Amino acid sequence: MSKAGIKAGIVGATGYTGQELLRLLAKHPEVSLEAVTSRGEGGKAVSALFPNLRGNVNSVFVNPDSADLENCDVVFFATPNGTAMTMVPGLLDKGVKIVDLSADFRIRDAELWSKWYGMDHVCPKLLQQAVYGLPEITRDQIGNASLVANPGCYPTAVQLGFLPLVKNGLVDTLQLIADCKSGVSGAGRKADIGFLLCETSESMKAYSINGHRHLPEITQGLDSASSTPINLTFMPHLIPMIRGIQASLYATLVDTGTDLQKLFEDFYQDEPFVDVLEAGLSPDTRSVRGTNNLQLAVCRPQDGDTVVVLAAEDNLVKGAAGQAVQNMNIMFGLEETTGLDIVAVLP
Amino acid sequence: MSKAGIKAGIVGATGYTGQELLRLLAKHPEVSLEAVTSRGEGGKAVSALFPNLRGNVNSVFVNPDSADLENCDVVFFATPNGTAMTMVPGLLDKGVKIVDLSADFRIRDAELWSKWYGMDHVCPKLLQQAVYGLPEITRDQIGNASLVANPGCYPTAVQLGFLPLVKNGLVDTLQLIADCKSGVSGAGRKADIGFLLCETSESMKAYSINGHRHLPEITQGLDSASSTPINLTFMPHLIPMIRGIQASLYATLVDTGTDLQKLFEDFYQDEPFVDVLEAGLSPDTRSVRGTNNLQLAVCRPQDGDTVVVLAAEDNLVKGAAGQAVQNMNIMFGLEETTGLDIVAVLP
Amino acid sequence: MSKAGIKAGIVGATGYTGQELLRLLAKHPEVSLEAVTSRGEGGKAVSALFPNLRGNVNSVFVNPDSADLENCDVVFFATPNGTAMTMVPGLLDKGVKIVDLSADFRIRDAELWSKWYGMDHVCPKLLQQAVYGLPEITRDQIGNASLVANPGCYPTAVQLGFLPLVKNGLVDTLQLIADCKSGVSGAGRKADIGFLLCETSESMKAYSINGHRHLPEITQGLDSASSTPINLTFMPHLIPMIRGIQASLYATLVDTGTDLQKLFEDFYQDEPFVDVLEAGLSPDTRSVRGTNNLQLAVCRPQDGDTVVVLAAEDNLVKGAAGQAVQNMNIMFGLEETTGLDIVAVLP
Amino acid sequence: MSKAGIKAGIVGATGYTGQELLRLLAKHPEVSLEAVTSRGEGGKAVSALFPNLRGNVNSVFVNPDSADLENCDVVFFATPNGTAMTMVPGLLDKGVKIVDLSADFRIRDAELWSKWYGMDHVCPKLLQQAVYGLPEITRDQIGNASLVANPGCYPTAVQLGFLPLVKNGLVDTLQLIADCKSGVSGAGRKADIGFLLCETSESMKAYSINGHRHLPEITQGLDSASSTPINLTFMPHLIPMIRGIQASLYATLVDTGTDLQKLFEDFYQDEPFVDVLEAGLSPDTRSVRGTNNLQLAVCRPQDGDTVVVLAAEDNLVKGAAGQAVQNMNIMFGLEETTGLDIVAVLP
Repeated sequence: MSKAGIKAGIVGATGYTGQELLRLLAKHPEVSLEAVTSRGEGGKAVSALFPNLRGNVNSVFVNPDSADLENCDVVFFATPNGTAMTMVPGLLDKGVKIVDLSADFRIRDAELWSKWYGMDHVCPKLLQQAVYGLPEITRDQIGNASLVANPGCYPTAVQLGFLPLVKNGLVDTLQLIADCKSGVSGAGRKADIGFLLCETSESMKAYSINGHRHLPEITQGLDSASSTPINLTFMPHLIPMIRGIQASLYATLVDTGTDLQKLFEDFYQDEPFVDVLEAGLSPDTRSVRGTNNLQLAVCRPQDGDTVVVLAAEDNLVKGAAGQAVQNMNIMFGLEETTGLDIVAVLP
Repeated sequence: MSKAGIKAGIVGATGYTGQELLRLLAKHPEVSLEAVTSRGEGGKAVSALFPNLRGNVNSVFVNPDSADLENCDVVFFATPNGTAMTMVPGLLDKGVKIVDLSADFRIRDAELWSKWYGMDHVCPKLLQQAVYGLPEITRDQIGNASLVANPGCYPTAVQLGFLPLVKNGLVDTLQLIADCKSGVSGAGRKADIGFLLCETSESMKAYSINGHRHLPEITQGLDSASSTPINLTFMPHLIPMIRGIQASLYATLVDTGTDLQKLFEDFYQDEPFVDVLEAGLSPDTRSVRGTNNLQLAVCRPQDGDTVVVLAAEDNLVKGAAGQAVQNMNIMFGLEETTGLDIVAVLP
Repeated sequence: MSKAGIKAGIVGATGYTGQELLRLLAKHPEVSLEAVTSRGEGGKAVSALFPNLRGNVNSVFVNPDSADLENCDVVFFATPNGTAMTMVPGLLDKGVKIVDLSADFRIRDAELWSKWYGMDHVCPKLLQQAVYGLPEITRDQIGNASLVANPGCYPTAVQLGFLPLVKNGLVDTLQLIADCKSGVSGAGRKADIGFLLCETSESMKAYSINGHRHLPEITQGLDSASSTPINLTFMPHLIPMIRGIQASLYATLVDTGTDLQKLFEDFYQDEPFVDVLEAGLSPDTRSVRGTNNLQLAVCRPQDGDTVVVLAAEDNLVKGAAGQAVQNMNIMFGLEETTGLDIVAVLP
Repeated sequence: MSKAGIKAGIVGATGYTGQELLRLLAKHPEVSLEAVTSRGEGGKAVSALFPNLRGNVNSVFVNPDSADLENCDVVFFATPNGTAMTMVPGLLDKGVKIVDLSADFRIRDAELWSKWYGMDHVCPKLLQQAVYGLPEITRDQIGNASLVANPGCYPTAVQLGFLPLVKNGLVDTLQLIADCKSGVSGAGRKADIGFLLCETSESMKAYSINGHRHLPEITQGLDSASSTPINLTFMPHLIPMIRGIQASLYATLVDTGTDLQKLFEDFYQDEPFVDVLEAGLSPDTRSVRGTNNLQLAVCRPQDGDTVVVLAAEDNLVKGAAGQAVQNMNIMFGLEETTGLDIVAVLP
């Protein structure tokens, strides 16, 4: 293969984030796919499972036990929670870099992680070594990391939305509200009655109303940026669409004198994937569908002391696979936008 | 016609709320449709425009100028804002009762109404006479009213959700947040690129972010019930589905000692159309689709001082035509549920 | 319970056809629900699984083994294929009438049934006794039947569309084509990746292209009405919507002199649930959604010798539960439309 | 701008095909956008109308009258029918190459065109000069053309599906049936009640049942390839999705001895954008969404004498803008796949 560069492996490539990695890496000019694993589909052509990849991905799924992951330069984990932590230590020892799209290394506190994920962590020491891969915040650390914990979909949108306010001490951090809406692909590609078209189309609802696993991840991230403690009410909603997260974030301003529009524009002015809309506009999810872009807007309804931040991203791209590629680009010293220069298909 | 009872007219029956009135009144045992008007479709069979009514509605659209509205017992206005106020005074003089589904009589302050609706009110005195038709709050007044202002779709859900808290002084009324989501039918049946399937499917966004006309209506209603002033941040969102409003309401408890579940259950225990779900459940819009039911849930995430109320209704039924029929039932002394005893079609 | 009348049981009420039976029977004035069974949900309130039934169905799922089905006047089977045939003989012996919504008794030839359904039939003799419950064709037999095989969803639409042509010998019965499109609810309420919203929304395809089980059922029905042998190409398609079947039926006229519009109108003039549209109209599925109506149109494009029949029905109502209630009404001597007088919710 | 190459103009870029051209040309390595016209949006930034293009298209809409189209190397017309024919002669005189995505130059017979399009053709002589731009059939002529008539969406799928059969004389060409299904974007981006989400979601129907304008275009194309006369029944259907055409094509084999799978694979073996699926598979529209690919399958149900061809394409890409870019690539001697090497976003 003339396509030299980075040899990549994907563990657990039959889910939606795995497929999305395949789509993006298939066109990445510096990456060759070396191993695409699946415990259930071993021996099957990848493009037989995902016909959109016909002619673009010629790989065959291999069982993870027989995959030559150690010869990869980077391995992406697109596995259910609890799998990556069992395989990552061995791969790190062989010098393989890791981008974990599951939640295994996102929470630095092993006890807190256990509480929310319902199992013990098998390599808690790695939690300190892992870098939380939100490039807009931790770019420098990612560049030196061998293990990157790719953020969750909601945490990406909520943190990037709140950060300019929280970091600058402009809001009451004890009364943050994140009303978030996600397309159904956030639930993954798994056989579950609750996510059938007949159960989710033409309807919507809040879910996980007593606590969603992304709450501690968001709180941890905002805490790092805030000089005051964080108390967040996070309410996720299921929306009858495939892709997209829209987040409406509410906070009380402790100081209404700041030009919020300018604050946001300045904060993200050098970011290739964060796009602050002009005042008065509201981001819709379709404008970023299939891309690594996050669109943001900020407003102050009726000029009161409540600030509202509106964010839109594709949960499978900036909220998962796209951010993983962005992280890989940083880890390997590539231009950060390599392979991610995509225009959303609209309508 | 053997179906004696109430002779009803509908002005402006070519929109979605008008059609919904037709659907409900067609099966109402005490109502006969006497006049169904349309300025654009005069002479056309109603069932030619709405094929779901074939065999159920035999009326023909008549031009409002030639419709015999004065002989009706009740006239429903399903017109754009600004039309009802020009016709209502004359009909009231003739003893016709009115249920106005537009916004013409919802705001008691004519100046405030003008500011939000962009025109002068032509009969401001009637604003004081009109009864705001939210039966759960104003049932007794409705029973004696000749002019009922049928509430807006969002205001119905938001007021019924916040009322038990506000009326009992349990929350900080200066920091109320209503994050509301509506299906596209809320925009009405009109030729507008923004509401094409191609523009609204597979996407979502906040809209009217600088102020929506339902804000003063909600504030007025909550104000009446509250001993402290109301300050509400109301953020509507457009969801890729036809029908349904889901509202997530956030407030800060001034007292966390109240049993909120019991409070809500007691508050609505005698209401035929408000259904408080068991603790832990979350209402979805499909469970009330096509019905006059509003489902409510209340929770306190992480046992903190933020209370969240979740509400689901059908914007065209409890949020419009169904509530109008409920109001008519009360005005004419009928059993309140007459003609509204419908089971939602699921899935 | 004052609601005397017919005591009904539903076996397998956790699927979509079962739920639809519950919705319809809950409002049927002559029926009381005596037993609602489920092997998986025994002990659970029906309305906990189907929140649309809150306040309308108070039953609790019981395990079929402990359900008192023998005391029912009628038992509906909404079970997977292969279950009804094991229970029906015993119930018939006790004098219970049966409407089987599964495929167990639809095909009179046991060998043919085995070939398509992949199992042996355990009571082949009952296949001769069972009446195929398509009232427009077999009304008289249904009235005397104790065991009714409720037709499949596609077979209802295709047979009723082709019958006026086939019965009158107007088309070449060796070249019939049925291009049928179904909403996803046709696949049932089961955990299957293939019917997730993410797999079926914003896409469509033909499926079962090498042969669908409804083919022999349709052929059997048309054969009975035809003096010439039937050869049908039946191609089903999956459409990104919840409910509805649209069928476009093609045949070559052997005689182009007949007034097809009049033929269809006359053929179905006394049928309460078959609605022949005026020339030039095309039925859409939403106009019959949630109802027991089938809408038909017939046309001859470019005045050629190809006739096209267009049919629309709700696959869960006229294609399943509604037709089952219609059959029950006939079996018990009730007005055929009892409990089925519903207006479609539009939009 | 270092991006030298081809200077392109788009006339009428506010519709869906226009936007799709913008999306594709924005990333085309050999094209620079010189003029993007709109009569209604002149002066507005393109990315203000289409936020997905933010950061990718910096053009501003200009009024067509003041656009410098004559200095373009190629001008695409994405206008309503009847506009291109008024502007094309002048541009051709200036040496500008034209790809017309409207129907103005698709039908060679001016009288037939007038009959179906309801107006006189203003430059009928150009109809003979125009090359019908279906590269799989007319590639050589396209290479030499200055005026290419880009095929309609349905005609692309139906012709490419039937051609292997018709060209080889394998079917009765007097009894061809094309049952076609299209997403709503086929209706264009225009204010029309009929295509609101509320009118088209959760429903489907056949439309234009008395004759669709694409019929003569398809017939003309098949006629050219056939030694026997063509008689086609073409029935389009509206499907509740944004993008995609699925066509199920039916014909009677005059000879059942041919290996149809091999025939199709051989016929299209060198085509970069036509993908013949393995036997037994059925193309779904999502697998080609956003791409220029057409997927085909062929089968013979029950081994009878009816052949069924199944085709799937994106109506806005292979059915419009993508094929236009493919044609431009051929006209300018570029690699045919330039700028069209896209992987479908799935799910």
